[in-house]
Amino acid sequence: MKIITIGREYGSGGRTIGKMVAAKLGIPYYDRELVDEAAKNSGLAVEAIEENDQVVTRSFLYDLAIGTSYGYVNSAGVPLDLNTQVFLAQRETILKFAESPCVIVGRCADYVLREREDVLRVFIYADKKSRLERIVSEYGEDPDKAEKLLAQSDKRRARHYEEFTDSIWGARRNYDIMLNSAAHGAEKTAEIICMLAQND
Amino acid sequence: MKIITIGREYGSGGRTIGKMVAAKLGIPYYDRELVDEAAKNSGLAVEAIEENDQVVTRSFLYDLAIGTSYGYVNSAGVPLDLNTQVFLAQRETILKFAESPCVIVGRCADYVLREREDVLRVFIYADKKSRLERIVSEYGEDPDKAEKLLAQSDKRRARHYEEFTDSIWGARRNYDIMLNSAAHGAEKTAEIICMLAQND
Repeated sequence: MKIITIGREYGSGGRTIGKMVAAKLGIPYYDRELVDEAAKNSGLAVEAIEENDQVVTRSFLYDLAIGTSYGYVNSAGVPLDLNTQVFLAQRETILKFAESPCVIVGRCADYVLREREDVLRVFIYADKKSRLERIVSEYGEDPDKAEKLLAQSDKRRARHYEEFTDSIWGARRNYDIMLNSAAHGAEKTAEIICMLAQND
Repeated sequence: MKIITIGREYGSGGRTIGKMVAAKLGIPYYDRELVDEAAKNSGLAVEAIEENDQVVTRSFLYDLAIGTSYGYVNSAGVPLDLNTQVFLAQRETILKFAESPCVIVGRCADYVLREREDVLRVFIYADKKSRLERIVSEYGEDPDKAEKLLAQSDKRRARHYEEFTDSIWGARRNYDIMLNSAAHGAEKTAEIICMLAQND
């Protein structure tokens, strides 16, 4: 049984599919909130983790104000910037989760675990129309704002990934399988992932 | 049962996988040579089709020399350039093949059939190391030339696709599933494709 990491476009149903996979295989499911929660326990302020997703660059003063006492320092002993501290705390949490089979959604987990052979790296995407429909009907977002939200979320995910990895979010090189959830439906998509996680 | 189109990186084993899928499902398998052969019967010179892959732009004089008598003309009655004639002849052949379930490898078949709902659009890729190994061991290419050949082939496929479609070769938007054949092996990759072609 493999560790399963799931990267996903906003509105593609990646989270739902991840939960289905975990339930089918009887293994834990960790999404970004759980990774954040665990990382927080390492000493970083809640606000720092919550906001890590929203803002890519922030001022040095803000870093000082929110506290950089977590302990990640560079070779000269200077604390690393807050974003990097958050990334490293999440990374440690992911490495701990990955001691046994589980599903991890988001948080560059595919990159964090890239050296491991027992990882199935999945990316879920869908056409724009299906994603807009899901954002409105399942996530309850305002239809007028859905399109903007979609573009912003993808951009944010891509930027976050590209800031902390040496690769491109959604580039096929980083994944073992990429599935169009709108073409197959969540159930079938989850089935395929389970099949590969168990038999590979 | 769906029509299955397979786009693939050079050396990823897409052709082998396509043949396995066709055999498992008991449906015909058409690769580029068969599409070319059928298109040729429409009136285009063998050399024109064979060379269509190699050179993207060619001179007007060359077009005249090799013959543009096939009959594709623009709205002013002027024969289209040779590349376009070849593409259109292949397109007609693909549309004919796609009257019943089959596997079609290459030739922008996913684009040609993009309006159809009964098509499973697959893209096969693999890491560079696995592809170089396959190019040498299975295709019998010179190990010293394998890397250059790989880069050239991908570039040619991408250019051909982008010349005749409004999209990008290998971009996830164009496919229902993208599979890393090196991660799963040809057999498992073929199995997944069969599962989706039959049950969707």
